[in-house]
Order: sequence, then C-alpha cells, then structure tokens
Amino acid sequence: MPQRIDSTPRADGYRMPAEWEEHAGCWMLWPQRRDTWRNGGKPAQCAFVDVAEKIARFEPVTMGVNRDQYENARAMLPPQIRVVELSNNDAWIRDIGATFVVSDQGSARGVNWKFNAWGGLQKMMYFPWDQDDLLPIKMLEVEGLDRYDAPLVMEGGSIHVDGQGTLITTEQCLLHTNRNPDLSRGDIEDYLADYLNIEQIIWLPRGVYEDETDGHVDNICCIVRPGVVALTWTDDRSDPQYERSAEAYDKLMSARDARGASLEVHKIHQPDPMTMTREEAEGLDVVDTAFLRPQGERLAGSYINFYIANGAIILPQFGDRRDEDACRKLAELFPARQVVGVYAREILLGGGNIHCITQQQPAGHASSSA
Amino acid sequence: MPQRIDSTPRADGYRMPAEWEEHAGCWMLWPQRRDTWRNGGKPAQCAFVDVAEKIARFEPVTMGVNRDQYENARAMLPPQIRVVELSNNDAWIRDIGATFVVSDQGSARGVNWKFNAWGGLQKMMYFPWDQDDLLPIKMLEVEGLDRYDAPLVMEGGSIHVDGQGTLITTEQCLLHTNRNPDLSRGDIEDYLADYLNIEQIIWLPRGVYEDETDGHVDNICCIVRPGVVALTWTDDRSDPQYERSAEAYDKLMSARDARGASLEVHKIHQPDPMTMTREEAEGLDVVDTAFLRPQGERLAGSYINFYIANGAIILPQFGDRRDEDACRKLAELFPARQVVGVYAREILLGGGNIHCITQQQPAGHASSSA
Repeated sequence: MPQRIDSTPRADGYRMPAEWEEHAGCWMLWPQRRDTWRNGGKPAQCAFVDVAEKIARFEPVTMGVNRDQYENARAMLPPQIRVVELSNNDAWIRDIGATFVVSDQGSARGVNWKFNAWGGLQKMMYFPWDQDDLLPIKMLEVEGLDRYDAPLVMEGGSIHVDGQGTLITTEQCLLHTNRNPDLSRGDIEDYLADYLNIEQIIWLPRGVYEDETDGHVDNICCIVRPGVVALTWTDDRSDPQYERSAEAYDKLMSARDARGASLEVHKIHQPDPMTMTREEAEGLDVVDTAFLRPQGERLAGSYINFYIANGAIILPQFGDRRDEDACRKLAELFPARQVVGVYAREILLGGGNIHCITQQQPAGHASSSA
Repeated sequence: MPQRIDSTPRADGYRMPAEWEEHAGCWMLWPQRRDTWRNGGKPAQCAFVDVAEKIARFEPVTMGVNRDQYENARAMLPPQIRVVELSNNDAWIRDIGATFVVSDQGSARGVNWKFNAWGGLQKMMYFPWDQDDLLPIKMLEVEGLDRYDAPLVMEGGSIHVDGQGTLITTEQCLLHTNRNPDLSRGDIEDYLADYLNIEQIIWLPRGVYEDETDGHVDNICCIVRPGVVALTWTDDRSDPQYERSAEAYDKLMSARDARGASLEVHKIHQPDPMTMTREEAEGLDVVDTAFLRPQGERLAGSYINFYIANGAIILPQFGDRRDEDACRKLAELFPARQVVGVYAREILLGGGNIHCITQQQPAGHASSSA
C-alpha cells in the first residue's frame, strides 16, 4: 500500500526511464473545460477518444475523469479503456500527473511535483488548479505505488530524459520567474538530479514560438534514443520559429550527453503556420479566470509532440502537406515501431498536443517499502 | 480491461463466495453527510478510521472518497489505507457497492445492482442517489474487473450467502413495494439465482426493530459457515425485537440449506436498547431531502453487523454489558479468527454498523473476457 517517502529517487536507486522503455500503460484525462475546448468540449472529446483508442491497441489506457463527465466518458470510450474518477481542472496529464521512476529491481514509484498551472497568478492560464495539484497523489494511490514529493514547480512536458542520466529542458520555461522564483539554476539542476537521477542537463534556450507553456521542450525537441534527438524545424527564415529552432540546433550540436557523447540531431519540418479561426474562437466560453484564446492566434503546431507507446509512435497530423513527411521520418527514426497518425487539430486548439495529454507508466511493480 | 457482460454469473460459472472465503481486500467509503453524521461528520470519520485501521491489519483496505474530502481523508487515514476518489452520496458501501463473484478458475467479476437509496422516493432516505448508483461501475473499473448489470434493486446488506448455493434474506426488505414493485417473489428468486449462483433461498420474515433499511438481513442474522448461523436475540419478551428474533429463529430451525441440511442456530444477545440523545440529534443538519433522525429514536443495535476479514472478526461494541459476551461467543464460532472489537456507536447513529460500511473483494484475478 502506498507510502510517502522522505528521501529522493536518486538516493534510493530509482531513475526516470526513457519514454521508449516498456510501459505498464498510459494515463490520460478527459477534456471538458468550455474555455479551453470549443463547443462544450465535444470535438476535443472525440479527438481524445481517437488518441486513447489508438494507444490502447498497444498498451493499457486509463482515462481519468471528473464526476460530472464520468457517464459520458464511459459511454464515448471503447470498453478496453479503464475509466477512473480523477478530479482535474484541465486535461494535460503530461504536465499535471505523476512522473514515474523505476529501480533496477523492477519496482516503480512516483514523483509528485508542485504544480501552479504553468505560471500561477503571474500568468493566469486558469484558476483554480487545486484538483490538478492533487492528481499525482491520486494516480499513485490507485496504483498502490509509493510517492516522493518534489519541492519544485515543474510540468512533465518541460523535460525529456534518455533514461541513462541525460535530461533536456528549456531555460525559457524552467528558469521562468513564474515557476520557481526562489530557486537558482543550480538549485533546479540539483532537484532534477535528485528526483529523476540525472547526471547531465542540456538547456535549450527557448521552446516553440507562441507555445503557451513558456516553451516546453516536448513541443520542440525529443530524444529518440541515447545520443539521437529530433527537433522541430522550419526552412522559412522569416518565420519567428526559425531562430528558435536554429539556436536549439546549435546548442544540441555542441552538447554532450551523460555518457560524454555528442548528439545526432534530426530536423522534422513543422507544419505550415496555423491560426485559430473565427468559428473556433467563437466556440469557447469567455471567463475571467482563464486565458483568452482569440481568433487569429498562431497555434504552436509541431510533429515533435508525439507519444511513444509500446511498439508504436502516436503522431499528430494536421491535414498539412508535411504530414506524410513527418510520418516517414519518424518511421525511419523508430524502425521497430508502427507510426500511427491522429488528426490532432482539436488538441492543438487547446494549447498542446498528443504528448501533452498522455503520461506513460513504466512497467514495474509496487515496492515493499517500510 | 473491464467489459460489461450481457450473460449472468450463473451461466458463466461464477458464484458469490461466502464472506469467510479469502479476500483480496476490503472497500469502504468516507462519511461526510451532515444530515447522517453528526457534527459535520467528524466523530463518524474517526470511527471509520478506526474500523479501516483494524481491518488493514488483516487485509488491504481501499477508502473511496468524494473530491472535497480527499485531502482530509488522506490525512486522517494511516498510509497503508489506499485512498481513491469515488464520488458517493453516503458511505454505506455494503449496500451501494459492487458484489463480487468468482469462478472456479480463480477469476473475479462484479455485479452492479440497481440502487434506489433503500426505497426511492417512496421512502426518501435521501435525494439524489445518482453517485451511489454509479459506484459499482467505478469500483470495477479501478480493479479492471468485468461487470454484470443486474436488473434488480438490491442492497448488499439484504443478503448473506454460504458460497455453496444458500442465500438468506428478509421478506420485509426484498419484497417491499419500494424496491421492485413489478417483480414477484419468484422473479426476485430467479435473479438472485442467476446473479449470485444460488440454489436455495431462506426467507426470514423481518429484520431488526426500527432498522431503517426495511430489515436488512445483515443486522439480524448471518452465516458462520455452511449449516451454522448466528441470530441477534433478546430474552426480554416485552422488547419489540423479541417476536422478530423468535419468528426468525423458528424459520431458521425449520429451514434447509442448498445441501438439504438443517441449520445450527446460535443466539447472540443484543445490547440493551439505545436511543439517540438530544446532543446527538442536535449535531445533525436538518434538510428537506433526507430522513430526519430525532432525539429518542431507538437505534437498531446488533452484534450481528460485524465484518469477517482474513483471519479476523471486526465486531461492533457499544459500551454495553453484553459486549464481552458477544466477543466470547464470536470467538467460539470463529475459532481460527481473532475477534477485534470497535466502539461503534457513531456508526450506529448513522443507521448501520460495521458490516454496512464494508464490502469484501474476494481473492481473484481479472478474467480475460472477449
């Protein structure tokens, strides 16, 4: 039965595995906010069902849902998806949920980060976020896994790891004053080292242009395997994304991972710039306590925001001329996995994509702690 | 992953095991209604913590809790209790929750009964009961167990089984017009046979005097092992309980179980009559949509309302002169189990006791259904 543990994963011999390591399953949350998801959330719910159903072909999926949407979610989802009550303020479980760590002996535990809804009152993405902040505890209780409480405001989408001591993040997000104003870069590095078992941190300067998370790494760059990364790219030098991808590219080309090796960087060309249409914007409720999503806003579209499932890549598609090329490149980078595309504009309209709405739980049993 | 199954447990070779068969664990719900539980539910919460902690010495305990009480329940309960979000209208999981059935091959499934809060609008114990009615589905989703939906309004506290084809219930409850007015006694017997795999039903006339459940069997009589039952009793012929226990005794003495054997009946003398005090009654909120619990009301106290855990009997105690005798008799009836008493007046004030607030989950793995 679950316990709160006062030490750190590093001290206890636990590490965050890479996303490509074997999963016990995948967690998602059901979208319903009328100010994030247009038309009462119905189009997004259909898109989430599509993502869940496709992941469930490869690994078990658990959908967390607020009580007022329980019957609707259960009815819309296929029976192989487990639906559990998990109160939440919005559906971005990558950022809200627990991060799982594993030991060499095959036991799993969870890390409960502090959460302030991507910047707290300074940014005011939405208010309140009390249920989101409790979510990691509830996930771990359902699974009966022990828990570490990390004293760091952090979202899961702001990091990628190779499972061998390397972490990639962005300065734009993790050093932002709206996250941990009282912590230095060194303090933050120490916490990442302690709670994820990290030896080497690669700091990219910024994330994707107009990414409302303050530049989460999971929309700009991800790790394919140790020593190999993929980066969102544009050949259009007039696009504001160009200099962001170019500076990340330079940084990555000069970086060393935890093994001391240099990185192989693969560019994945972004879809053509997309903006929110008038019809889409008009489908959103306007509320004082949440971010406004106006017509004409540039959407932070990127193929990098995919999910690695057991044996598959679940890849966003936008109806864009670059969709096919992204599929082909990912298939080359992950030759042992099936690339499964999902039309994901409805998820992107909410401010993220497939990686943001999923959280892998690595294979691993409960530890028998004190 | 869980599925809804259209056949019946009997057709699929599943049966409801007796409570004394091995458990995977015990489910409970967190009390919080201010119109059922006095003083904002705080005394009842302490009593539930006591019950949960004592059961957890013998088997895993999961506590289901509404979202607004999650942090409080997690803080009040010891860490070995698993706390999961399970929205509910009140805390009587024996009556609200799933009934588990098992196959000879060791797989477990659940039965989802229809629930109308002990008599629907005709009785108006409280309104609404929508979250209670969803609870069995949610329990089974958490566990990943398949589910049968039974077309019968029934509460778990209105039945006891011996796991070998015998069921005991009361006419007062299960034939009441406020439960299944359109079903005959034969229809109800057929459903019990199909969903619990029952061959023989023993109908007792009535339950305990002033029992607000319309006479649930689990407060008057229980099965100790095949062929042996325990019955609440009073030697006081002027007590309205006397004729109820006496008629049940006569019925039991002439009954045959599924094997065709007669029953050995052990009388457990009830505690002295108890009533709700003025202070207790004044601690309750008065609301239009719930049962009034007035000062002076007779409480349906009974030692029969105990829980059988792996290796233990969790037995209500009332600070009564008969407490010790009940402990001694139960120890004789269950020689292989430790009898653990819990002071249970706070639970009784809400209208039930330890058996009513617990629901065993038998040992058994998820079935790999179609």
